[in-house]
Order: sequence, then structure tokens, then C-alpha cells
Amino acid sequence: MSENQKNTNSANIAILGASGYTGIEAIRLLVNNKNYNIVDLTADSNAGISISEIYPHLGGINLPNLKKIEDINFSNIDAVISCLPHGKTQKILSSLPKNIKICDLSADFRFKDIESYEKVYSKKHEAIEIQKDVIYGLTEINREKIKKSRFIANPGCYPTSALLPLLPLINDNIVKEGNIIIDSKSGVSGAGRTLKNNLLYGEVSEGFSAYGLISHRHRPEIQNQIIDFGSTIHKVLFTPHLLPIKRGILSTIYFSMNDQASIDDVINCLKNKYSDEQFVKYSESLPSTHDVRGTNLCKMKAFFDKSTDQVIIISVIDNLLKGATGQAIQNLNLMLGFNETDGLLNFPMFP
Amino acid sequence: MSENQKNTNSANIAILGASGYTGIEAIRLLVNNKNYNIVDLTADSNAGISISEIYPHLGGINLPNLKKIEDINFSNIDAVISCLPHGKTQKILSSLPKNIKICDLSADFRFKDIESYEKVYSKKHEAIEIQKDVIYGLTEINREKIKKSRFIANPGCYPTSALLPLLPLINDNIVKEGNIIIDSKSGVSGAGRTLKNNLLYGEVSEGFSAYGLISHRHRPEIQNQIIDFGSTIHKVLFTPHLLPIKRGILSTIYFSMNDQASIDDVINCLKNKYSDEQFVKYSESLPSTHDVRGTNLCKMKAFFDKSTDQVIIISVIDNLLKGATGQAIQNLNLMLGFNETDGLLNFPMFP
Amino acid sequence: MSENQKNTNSANIAILGASGYTGIEAIRLLVNNKNYNIVDLTADSNAGISISEIYPHLGGINLPNLKKIEDINFSNIDAVISCLPHGKTQKILSSLPKNIKICDLSADFRFKDIESYEKVYSKKHEAIEIQKDVIYGLTEINREKIKKSRFIANPGCYPTSALLPLLPLINDNIVKEGNIIIDSKSGVSGAGRTLKNNLLYGEVSEGFSAYGLISHRHRPEIQNQIIDFGSTIHKVLFTPHLLPIKRGILSTIYFSMNDQASIDDVINCLKNKYSDEQFVKYSESLPSTHDVRGTNLCKMKAFFDKSTDQVIIISVIDNLLKGATGQAIQNLNLMLGFNETDGLLNFPMFP
Amino acid sequence: MSENQKNTNSANIAILGASGYTGIEAIRLLVNNKNYNIVDLTADSNAGISISEIYPHLGGINLPNLKKIEDINFSNIDAVISCLPHGKTQKILSSLPKNIKICDLSADFRFKDIESYEKVYSKKHEAIEIQKDVIYGLTEINREKIKKSRFIANPGCYPTSALLPLLPLINDNIVKEGNIIIDSKSGVSGAGRTLKNNLLYGEVSEGFSAYGLISHRHRPEIQNQIIDFGSTIHKVLFTPHLLPIKRGILSTIYFSMNDQASIDDVINCLKNKYSDEQFVKYSESLPSTHDVRGTNLCKMKAFFDKSTDQVIIISVIDNLLKGATGQAIQNLNLMLGFNETDGLLNFPMFP
Repeated sequence: MSENQKNTNSANIAILGASGYTGIEAIRLLVNNKNYNIVDLTADSNAGISISEIYPHLGGINLPNLKKIEDINFSNIDAVISCLPHGKTQKILSSLPKNIKICDLSADFRFKDIESYEKVYSKKHEAIEIQKDVIYGLTEINREKIKKSRFIANPGCYPTSALLPLLPLINDNIVKEGNIIIDSKSGVSGAGRTLKNNLLYGEVSEGFSAYGLISHRHRPEIQNQIIDFGSTIHKVLFTPHLLPIKRGILSTIYFSMNDQASIDDVINCLKNKYSDEQFVKYSESLPSTHDVRGTNLCKMKAFFDKSTDQVIIISVIDNLLKGATGQAIQNLNLMLGFNETDGLLNFPMFP
Repeated sequence: MSENQKNTNSANIAILGASGYTGIEAIRLLVNNKNYNIVDLTADSNAGISISEIYPHLGGINLPNLKKIEDINFSNIDAVISCLPHGKTQKILSSLPKNIKICDLSADFRFKDIESYEKVYSKKHEAIEIQKDVIYGLTEINREKIKKSRFIANPGCYPTSALLPLLPLINDNIVKEGNIIIDSKSGVSGAGRTLKNNLLYGEVSEGFSAYGLISHRHRPEIQNQIIDFGSTIHKVLFTPHLLPIKRGILSTIYFSMNDQASIDDVINCLKNKYSDEQFVKYSESLPSTHDVRGTNLCKMKAFFDKSTDQVIIISVIDNLLKGATGQAIQNLNLMLGFNETDGLLNFPMFP
Repeated sequence: MSENQKNTNSANIAILGASGYTGIEAIRLLVNNKNYNIVDLTADSNAGISISEIYPHLGGINLPNLKKIEDINFSNIDAVISCLPHGKTQKILSSLPKNIKICDLSADFRFKDIESYEKVYSKKHEAIEIQKDVIYGLTEINREKIKKSRFIANPGCYPTSALLPLLPLINDNIVKEGNIIIDSKSGVSGAGRTLKNNLLYGEVSEGFSAYGLISHRHRPEIQNQIIDFGSTIHKVLFTPHLLPIKRGILSTIYFSMNDQASIDDVINCLKNKYSDEQFVKYSESLPSTHDVRGTNLCKMKAFFDKSTDQVIIISVIDNLLKGATGQAIQNLNLMLGFNETDGLLNFPMFP
Repeated sequence: MSENQKNTNSANIAILGASGYTGIEAIRLLVNNKNYNIVDLTADSNAGISISEIYPHLGGINLPNLKKIEDINFSNIDAVISCLPHGKTQKILSSLPKNIKICDLSADFRFKDIESYEKVYSKKHEAIEIQKDVIYGLTEINREKIKKSRFIANPGCYPTSALLPLLPLINDNIVKEGNIIIDSKSGVSGAGRTLKNNLLYGEVSEGFSAYGLISHRHRPEIQNQIIDFGSTIHKVLFTPHLLPIKRGILSTIYFSMNDQASIDDVINCLKNKYSDEQFVKYSESLPSTHDVRGTNLCKMKAFFDKSTDQVIIISVIDNLLKGATGQAIQNLNLMLGFNETDGLLNFPMFP
């Protein structure tokens, strides 16, 4: 199947860690994408075989076999999307030729604050010299920097769902000093293709639970981004929950407003910030994960509770798209000079 | 099928509104229950037929046909469990012979504060004289009153999940004046057997959304119970969400502690309060809805987040059991002098 | 969102019955499709409002409001896709201007044999004069006729899954005279957006059942197509089952081979027939509904059981795409002279 | 929790392989069962810990810690239920003291025909001398033999669903010589608690597929039972499918009748055979897996298709109960002289 002619200036791309969920999402989005040629797919433990032996639904597509990273000829590569797990990318990515554009989906380069990274991930940072040039790829916030960057740390899924509504409100001085509570619920694909009892169908279906209370690694990621963004007065409390769905994150966010601010200010701030955006929308209806499933969209809506003086924001994304591979390709499009939305404009399939 | 001999002092019971989900749950729990004889089942629009014509899984059980309420001979009845919808029970239940023990699962008698009821349900209260004798059937909180009562307003499902952890902590003066945030997630059976597009399989499965923000009717129920319990300094914010599961509620509750209190006080308060209870447990593991599915259990666990000074409590119930019919039978057992736990002791089926 | 420039010769299309599941699937596939301009959307009972009021996930798209069919100006229309229910289309569609290309997703025009139609659907045929010019839109079987046709009866979902493997084998005289057993399993969207208890999440999830045994209306559709195709010696037995999934049909087909035929003949016949097709594939792996979900694909694979001398074929489609709207657009592309695959080439999203 | 007083003659039971799904089902059914005292639980790789560390929903129950089989004092044991995997039980179970009643849920003793066992399971039979005294525990077929037996091979889940309807019909000479097609669909718990990608929630939910075509090990089990039952003229074709549900098997069975037989004979045969049974029922309504979920029931219903002269039988069980642990306890009840139905009489929970 190939619908589109490739662009004359299409980029040769290598997908590192192609056999995980974010990796096959990259294949799906790039294979018919006129801007990209998939030149290399890596999966160290499955080197030599076709991706379709692992994922039959990818059968019949013309794709290179899986190989080891060390067997890639990087002189032929324009861009890399790295879907490798945390803790594996710093050495590899920092050694690539400097002309290659890189988008890394792991957490390895997300922390400007090296100490904080090392504490959260219990691991020495192995590419500190590279870190300072890395841009955190929250596209709608850092677009201009991303365009000029060659190395993007793609945001975590939960942080994307929380930061897109929060940062403009913090920027406009609407959020009161103090606590921000982020009660998030994610589908199981957020855990990747991991063989654990608690991810088996028999143990997920028809159940619901919280996990990682207090200590989840995305809490410091959110907190650090808020600090990097300029605020030291907001403290984040983050509670993730595991939904019996495959994809989707819904974050319910609670905070108090500064005395002079009103809920209209909240709504206007978000509407203004995102009115021209293709992927981030202030929603007229109460956003459901259905509204963004299979898309690169983030939708959000704000409410005010008079009796407790709290703002409540509901924010939804597809964790594998705006929360991972979709935003990565949005970033690569910018870095490579393509239209930002190329290959990412589609509507949710429903039902 | 009949496993148990009936008790010599078994009670004749009528199930009003037997064809809804809470009604068939009552049938399931009572049909083999040695304490009860199911004498009448009502379902006005289906009067005359067998319940098994509506629910094939109830075929082959010896049960009376459905009838209209007006066709019940109440002189033969010792107890009534009313599974009728809100707004329909005040007239009917207030007219029953005074010797009959009543447990009403609707919201019609849950508000001591008549004005508040009428505002929340947009409806004149039609049995004010009865209201003052009604006990709110949160068993572990009001057990002694329930034993002596003849009329129980069975608590709502969300309120049960929230009040069981909160009331002992409020009682012990641990919860700081101010806001309590209750972020709740419920399975679809909470909405009953209702023909709405948003409850169709095709529109629930693989999705997640919030609903009833700010305005859900269980928020004033929780708030009023906290007031009835003696506190006027705590304000409740309640956000319900619809889970793609059939049964189960998980509430994530956030609050600040009074200055002199510690997380150990929270934990000890809950452990002490519930150490002798059969159905309410302080959990050693992080509670999942799986841990209570199909049972009358409530399990809870508390956490403390230093950076935001917040207590987080996770509380789980099965909305149709401890959140509805299970607690109703627990209450009827008490009112009728049976063992409180009769017919309710079972473990979750897993997977 | 609009990714593609429209073609200069793009067709103005009206979607009749746009508010059902096949209707919104047509919107999804056509809105960014360079070949089509969505000019009219109809939904009689919702005329006047935006489709996004019914389906929030369609919010923010530039679409005409819903209207009544009688309010369409058909002089402006090149093509119609009719997603109206059975029994409603014969009068409407037969009265349209003769220059308009029509693809009807209902069963109203699927039977060449008027008597058979009237018996199966208990209804007088109201457009007999039109019927004789209608082509049954099983694309890979009737492609050349479809190209020249102006009126397509789009096949039923179950028949598509069964006929695509069976007709080539019947054509090659491989299937022995006698019974063909088709044991089919379908997701709930096959029933449309219908408010019935047995389609509620609470009553579908975690269960499985057969339905419509012996009498399902798709059995005569399959039987009649086999007859129209030239065979009177094969009798079809069809058993549909309801899967707790949203989309997907898997049909397990059992038959005996003629004495001179072997399983290799079965496999070669199917491989040869479909080797050049974009949407119908003989699969190397055992086909799962996951392999076709969200696509216009049909995948099939054949097996032979020596001890019973039976061939078993597994065939999978997405009931809303190759089984409905996808095949409809494939047909319209042919009728209107566009590339057959335009707007239909994508891979399944997994997980 | 303990509802029932134990019987004075209650049996001390050891559950071997207690940490799998059939093992915890045994715990659930036996812990409050007046006939049994759970004396030992084994799980070799988890010896020393509490079962609640593996399954939190079993927390708070008074149960012995897990141990190794070799650490059991069998002189204290009256009965053993073995939930060990295939290939592990022959040595262990054949070495137990002869006074102990044994019910083995594995396939290791299901084949009278040693050769057939060794071929199907690619393994030398290690307890041939024991095999001849083993009874196949299909209770309603072999009840009298089971009562007198000390060693039961508990039937496979698929075979139970197929043999309960078929054997009486074969016995009454209703099924025509030739093929019987069994198209079965099972929930994922049939595969046990197995860490495989294809059992992950993300890869099961919203999909459906066949597996083990032609070669599934339950086909020879069914075939051999039919032979042991006296018929050599019926050949079984068996196609299993994986349902996205946790529990439940539905088998759709197709066969021809002998010339003199009618569908009434089929129905009467099944009704007569099972009219006095508590767990096997000829169903008035079309059986759904919902009708038996969480119970020891098998429900079935027969249909006749005139045009193809085929009988279709729909048969449903819960694979973990009548298809495994439930039937095992039914058998142990018989072997130990308890009421056959003790601890097994409950109705499905719905929704």
C-alpha cells in the first residue's frame, strides 16, 4: 500500500526501538508519509527478522528488516526517532553525527536539572554535555526553539496532558501559589509492551486502581517543567491510575486562582493560547478520551466550583500520539522544515 | 437450587422495583438466604411476567411473578427493600403498615434537610412527617440507630465510598478546615439499566470521561452527611467519572490535616475504627476495585505527600453491593435481628 | 483540519442518514478526502443541528448542518451514499436524478430475487424497476460492472466476510456440493446505534452469545449471491454471534472439497484471485480482527483437517469499513473514476 | 470472614498449584465451605509467602502460607485437588498415600489410551499403572463411577462444554455417522496466568481470533472420550477461538441426525438426561456465557436448520468452574460422601 508520492526533499529516518508500542506507532505514521522514508528499524533482540513476525498486522508492508543499532549506516540518515526505554539512550544518541535530527521519546534527556534526573531515575547521566542543547518537545509551548533545535526530548504522556493546560495559566499569573492536584487516568499502553501479571487482560479488564502514588517519575518531570517555565511557587501532587482501556489519558486538575482572577480568565487564557493551534483545543463539550483516540489532539475544558473556590480542568490526549509518537513527529516536522501537521491530521474513529 | 434451609424466624420480604440492577442484585442475594423469603417482586411495567423473561440468567429459579405494587398484600410482609427510582418512593413507602421494616435505596429519604432535598432533586418532598424518623444507613457509622430503626435511607454509592473514610477522620479532628476533593470513578451499573447512547457498549468501551462536574447530586448528599455528622467547616468538591467497567467505584480523596495531626494519626484512626468490622477494611495493599468486586466490602488506604502536605486516600467499593443492595441487606439484617453478615460473606471472584 | 487540496474534479456528495455509525464513518473518510466535497448531511429527526451536537468527537470540523432529505438540492449533487436503515431507501433512492451515482448501504436493493427480498424483509419492494440495474457492490468480484454502474447495493457485513473467500472457490469448482457452514462473530457496531438493553455496556462486556440462529437475514443474502453467482448446489448454514468488541467480524467457514481438489488448490485459488488486490489478502499468519480494524482490508487463511476432510477458512473484516462504509467508498471511487484506493489506504492502529 | 461452621466430618484438603487461576478458584470455593478445611497450599516458586502477596484480593483471610509439595505432611490430608500444569502431576500424584482422594485438573490422566496421550502431549506417561483406575470426571456422565473412585482426571474446559450435549445424543443413536464440528470460543482465563504478549490487555481487548486450528490438544481429548463412550463412527473437528472476556466458553456444535431422528428427539434426549440435574440445564432461552458466569452450570439449547439438515447446539459453561475447579469440587463432594452440590449453588452475578 502506498498512497502518497514521497516529497523530493523527504527525510531518511531511522526508528530505534521499533518493536515497542511507540515504535510501531512511528511505523504506522511514517510508512505512508510523504515526508519520510523509513530506512532503518532497530530492535536489538529481534535483529534479522521482519517486524511482521512480531506484529502480524504489519504484514505485507514493504519495510526493512529489524537490525541492531550498531549496524545502521548513519551517514545515510537525516533523522532519528528513538523509542528506546529510559536509561539506554544517552550514550547512543549523544554519539550520533551532529547533522542528524533527533527526537528521543525516553525520559533520558527531559531534565535540565541533572541532579533531579539522577535522583528520579537512580542513574548517572551519561551525556551531560549534550543535555544543555536539548529542547523539551512540548510543541505548542516551545515551538520556536524546537524549529531551531537538533535534539528534542519528547515529553512524557502524563506531563503533556497536564502541562498544556497549566503552563499558559501559570504564565498569565492565574494559578495561585500553592498546590496543584493532578489526578490522572491512563490506558495500559502507557506501560508499553511489558509482560507483567497486572497488565494481563484477565487482571485489567473490569477493574481500576491507582498506582505509583506520591512517587511516580512523571511528578518530578511536571514539577521541573513548571520550574523551568519560571514558577517556583507551585507544588504538584500527581496521582496516576490504570484504566482498563488501551489508549488515552484523562487528567483532572484542581487548583485555586489568584484573587484577582476569575474562571473567565482561565477560559480566555486557554482559548487565546490555543485558538490557532491544530492539535490543542479548548473544547465546547466535556472532553472524553474518545474525542482524541487515534489522533494527535489534546482537548481541555475548565470549570469553577464556587463552594470550594477551585478550578477543575479536564484534559485528554492519546498517550501514544500527543503523549508520545504523534508529538514526536510533530516535532520532527518542525525540525526538518515540513508542515507541522503533515501526516497527523485525522479524526478519531468512533465507535 | 436451594442450598440452605430457611430459618424458623425468616422474614417475608417484598422487593419493589425488582427489574433494575439493584433489584436483581437483591434477588440474587436473598433467594438462597436462610433469613428471607422472597414473597413479592414488583415491576409495574412488567407486571404479570416472570423476571426470567427479562433476565434469562434468572431462569429456573422458583420466584413469584412480577406484580404491581398495589397488588401486594402487605399484611403478609415483614420487610421491604425498595429499589424504585428517585422521586417515586416517598408516597408509597410512607403509606406502608408501620410494622414493616423498610430499606429504601433511592435518594428520597437521604436528606434530613428537606430544603436541600427539594433543591437538589427539584421536587417537593411528599413524606416530611416520615423523614424525621429515617436513619441514613451507613452501617458502620450508624449501626446502633439502624438496629432500632424501622426505616432506612440507604446511602448513595459515591457517598458510601467517600464517607466511610472521611467521617472517622472528621470525628477525630484530623481533617483541616477547608476543602476536601473527592475524585471518584464509577462503573456503568451506577447509572442503572438505562437506555442512553452514552451507556452503549460501542460508546463506553475503551473510553473514559468525567460527567456531572460541580453539579452531581451526590455532592450535596456527602456535604449534608458531613454537616449532619457535626462538621460545618469542611467543603466538599466532587468529580465523578465514568469507567468502562460494569461495577466498582474508586474514590481518590485529597485533604489537608490539622497542624498537630500526622499521617500515622490518619492510618491509626481508620485502623481503629474498622479493626473489628467484617466489611470495611484498612488495606495493606493499594486497593483495586478487583479487591471488592462482587462483595460487600469497602477497602481503603491512606498516603501522605510531603511536598504538598496532602493526605490521599484511596477507597473502593462495589457500587451495587456496599454501594447499594449489599449494604441494604446488611441494614435489614440488623433491623430484623439477624446476624449482620448473613448472606454477605464471600470473596471476590478473580479473574 | 484539512490536509489535502481537493481534486479539481472532486465530486459533491450527500450522506443520507449521517447520524448512524456508518454515516459518521462516511464523514470521517470523506472530510479530508481530496475526491469528495461533503455538501449535504441528512438526519431527519435531528435536522437543523450540527453533527457535533450528537457526536462531540466531530466538533471543530467545518461541516454542513444536518437537514431533512427533502431539503437537499440534488441538482448540486454528484453522488449519494445512503446510510439509511432497511426499508426506507427504495422510494427515496429510486426518485433521485439519474445522473447521480448512488451507493446504498441498506439491504433494500441487495436481492435480484424480488420475492426473496419481500419474504426476508416482510415488505413489498417499492422500486422493482430500479432493481434490475443495481449491482451488488462486492468490489473484488463485480469490479467491472461497478465501474459502469450508477447504483450499487453495498453488501452486508457478514456476507462480505463470507463471500470474498467462497465465491472464487465456488467459481473454480473446488467446493463440494452440499453444506457450507459459516460460523460468524461480530462486534456490536454491526447492530448500529440502537438503544436496546442487550447492547448496553453492562450487558455486553465480558459475555458472549449467539443470536438469530437459522433465521438471520444475512443467510438468504449469502445464499442468493451464491445462486446469482451461478451455483445452485451449495446450501448455506449461518450462525451469527455477538462479540464484546466494537468493530470486527471473524467468520469461520467449513466445507468439503470436491474429490479431485486439494487444500493447495484452495490456497492457490485464493492467492491467485487476490494477489493484485489492495484490500483483500491471503494472510500468512492466522488472521485476527486486529489485523483489519480501522481498515478496508479483508484477510483470510485456509486450513485442512484430514480426519474430517474439511476445509476451514478464517476470514476477517472491519464490519464498518470493508463490511460497510469503506467498501461503499471503494465502490464510489470506481463509479466516479477516481483511484479505487483513494482515501482508504491505512494500517490498523495497534494496540 | 467465616460464615459456616465446619462439618464434623469435614475433609482436610491440600491444594497443589494454588497460585494459578484454578488454584485460587479452589481457595475461593473451599475457604468458607463447611465440608473442607484448607490445610495446605503449594506453589513451589513462591513457597514461604502468603497467597495474598500474589493476589491482594485474598488478603485478610486465614490461610496457610504457600509451601513446597515435598513439605506437605500427607498423613494429615484426606483429599487433594491438583491444579498443577500438564506434565507435572503423574509422578507426584501416583506417589500419594492410597487413602487420599485425588482430583487432578491437568490433562495428565485424561487419556485411557496411553499412546494417544504420549502423542498429543509429546511426553512419556509416567504413571501407567495408576491410569487404569482413573475416572474421567465428567460428573453427569460418570457419576456412579466417580462416587467409588479415588482418583479423578477432571475434564478439560472445552471438552466439558462439548461432551455434555454430545454424549447423551450419541448414546441415543441420534447423531449420524460422520463429522461433528465444534466451533468453540473461550475467555482468556483458559490460558491460565501466563505471561505472553497475546494475553496482554492491550492485545486482547477489542479483538478476536482463532488459534490452535486442527491441532488443539482438546480435540483428541474429545475424540477419545467419544471412543471410550463407545462410538467409533464420529469424527470431531474442533476450532477454538480466543474471546476478549475473562471467563466463559460457548461452543457452537454442528452435526447431522440419523434418518429416523428429529430435532424433537434431540431436545427430548437432552431434557430427559438433564431434567434432574442441578448443574446441567436444557435452556429455554438462547444461552449466553452471562447465564453461567461464576457458577458451576452448563446450559445448552438445540436448533434445527431445515435447508442444510443440520442440528446446531449452543452450549455454555464458565471455564474455571464447570470447566475446571467447580466440577472438581463437585467430584470431590461425591468421592467424599458430601452432597454433590455443597458450596456450588449460586446464581450468576449480573451485570
